[in-house]
Amino acid sequence: MPYAHYVKPGSTVKLKDLDPSGHGGLEKEEADFRRHEMGQRVEEMQELMYAANMNSLLLVLQGCDTSGKDGSIKSILSYVNVQSCRVASFKQPTHLEASHDFLWRAHEQVPALGGMTIFNRSHYEDVLVVRVHDLVSKQVCKKRYEQINHFEELLADSGTIIVKFFLHISKDEQEKRLLAREEDADKSWKLSVGDWSERELWKDYQKAFTDALEACSTDCAPWYVVPANHKWFRDLAIMEALETTLKPYRQTWHEHLKEVGVERKKELEAYRQKNNIKT
Amino acid sequence: MPYAHYVKPGSTVKLKDLDPSGHGGLEKEEADFRRHEMGQRVEEMQELMYAANMNSLLLVLQGCDTSGKDGSIKSILSYVNVQSCRVASFKQPTHLEASHDFLWRAHEQVPALGGMTIFNRSHYEDVLVVRVHDLVSKQVCKKRYEQINHFEELLADSGTIIVKFFLHISKDEQEKRLLAREEDADKSWKLSVGDWSERELWKDYQKAFTDALEACSTDCAPWYVVPANHKWFRDLAIMEALETTLKPYRQTWHEHLKEVGVERKKELEAYRQKNNIKT
Repeated sequence: MPYAHYVKPGSTVKLKDLDPSGHGGLEKEEADFRRHEMGQRVEEMQELMYAANMNSLLLVLQGCDTSGKDGSIKSILSYVNVQSCRVASFKQPTHLEASHDFLWRAHEQVPALGGMTIFNRSHYEDVLVVRVHDLVSKQVCKKRYEQINHFEELLADSGTIIVKFFLHISKDEQEKRLLAREEDADKSWKLSVGDWSERELWKDYQKAFTDALEACSTDCAPWYVVPANHKWFRDLAIMEALETTLKPYRQTWHEHLKEVGVERKKELEAYRQKNNIKT
Repeated sequence: MPYAHYVKPGSTVKLKDLDPSGHGGLEKEEADFRRHEMGQRVEEMQELMYAANMNSLLLVLQGCDTSGKDGSIKSILSYVNVQSCRVASFKQPTHLEASHDFLWRAHEQVPALGGMTIFNRSHYEDVLVVRVHDLVSKQVCKKRYEQINHFEELLADSGTIIVKFFLHISKDEQEKRLLAREEDADKSWKLSVGDWSERELWKDYQKAFTDALEACSTDCAPWYVVPANHKWFRDLAIMEALETTLKPYRQTWHEHLKEVGVERKKELEAYRQKNNIKT
């Protein structure tokens, strides 16, 4: 059983039945060890992907405040080549962004061939926060699920590998994390009334997440629900899903690069011979 | 004495007199230990900078092939919050980029307030590679030094802290690194005739670097020459210069955030009282 819950396309999602405190029967030490092993394999595959230049990787992270998006990104980035990986954060849209369709700013940020982009929040905000605050009708929201699916299919058809993670924490865990922020005097600039007022809408958010997960988990762009109360388990679950996602491409990239390498070696030898360069 | 050579504005630079194998009398273990300590202080200051939103940081990396730009970036990124740090790589200009003045694409990538951007190569390519290959005249090049200085002054006047590193390796060390690439069959796709043909222009590059360092090391945007034959010393020297660069701002950011924090705490308490929320 994979550590993260794979949302099978077309299936229903019951967040209540998915334990945010899940830890796969592991303790932190063992989990860290496994994550590190997976991380090294992911690192190797991302390097191959970059070099082969045949695919790109789009990783989407969603979750409520304090669910650990930043921490997850830090964990992922410690294993990938940051040269070919970018993080795109989606905040309140700028005036220019809001003057376009909701996918415009996301499209601008998708990875080029060989590259990897992590979306810290994403185009899904436009079926989450705006829905919870009644800024769009249910009908518009439904239409947007479709538009998202078409958009992600377009990317996939052009070689983008897509994987999406919902960081699942409990309401109690969120309170604990928010209060911890207050205890650190050096961090009090981070405090925000918004964090607490959004908590009042917890149920609405869970419903909005559920609907998006159900409507937009597709074969080419699946959602995973990640138990995220334990940070170390969250990081392990994400790394495992990443490895699972990239593995089917490994052989193709590797073989392609072998061919390129033979070609390059020939060129270099010809150049040396011609210019009489000895090494 | 700082580990990297600070190019005093207006001074002459003799790269030949700066030992690329310099290591400050340290061994790797001690250097790694010091770098780690400095790194943690840099991490704390970058976080303060992000939160205070009063300044931004632009870090420029230049150096010939295999000089270790990627490795340096990896070392820096392991200490900064990658959420607020971006890497911008400057390759052969696209058609659109080449249809603008040479600073256009660099300007687009400079950090916003609070942010940090690392330039992997930069607008300096336009006084380096183009000059070595005689794509622009000496006169144009001279003009560009001025234009670069004006551009960097504009950024500095708007709160951008600028620090620039030239990674200094020896010609022998470069050959060693290029040959090492060939020994790894899995890396042979990386081989390129260009790496070897550019080597023939080594002296021209050293001259072009020297001229740029002399013309464009200013008070608001100084150059550092980093001995880079030893990777561990290179990383230490960069981290030290980074710490030195950020330190003068630390107190201001800290005090500003303390004030913000007091304000936020008040707001939060008022909100809780009004809504009768107990924690």
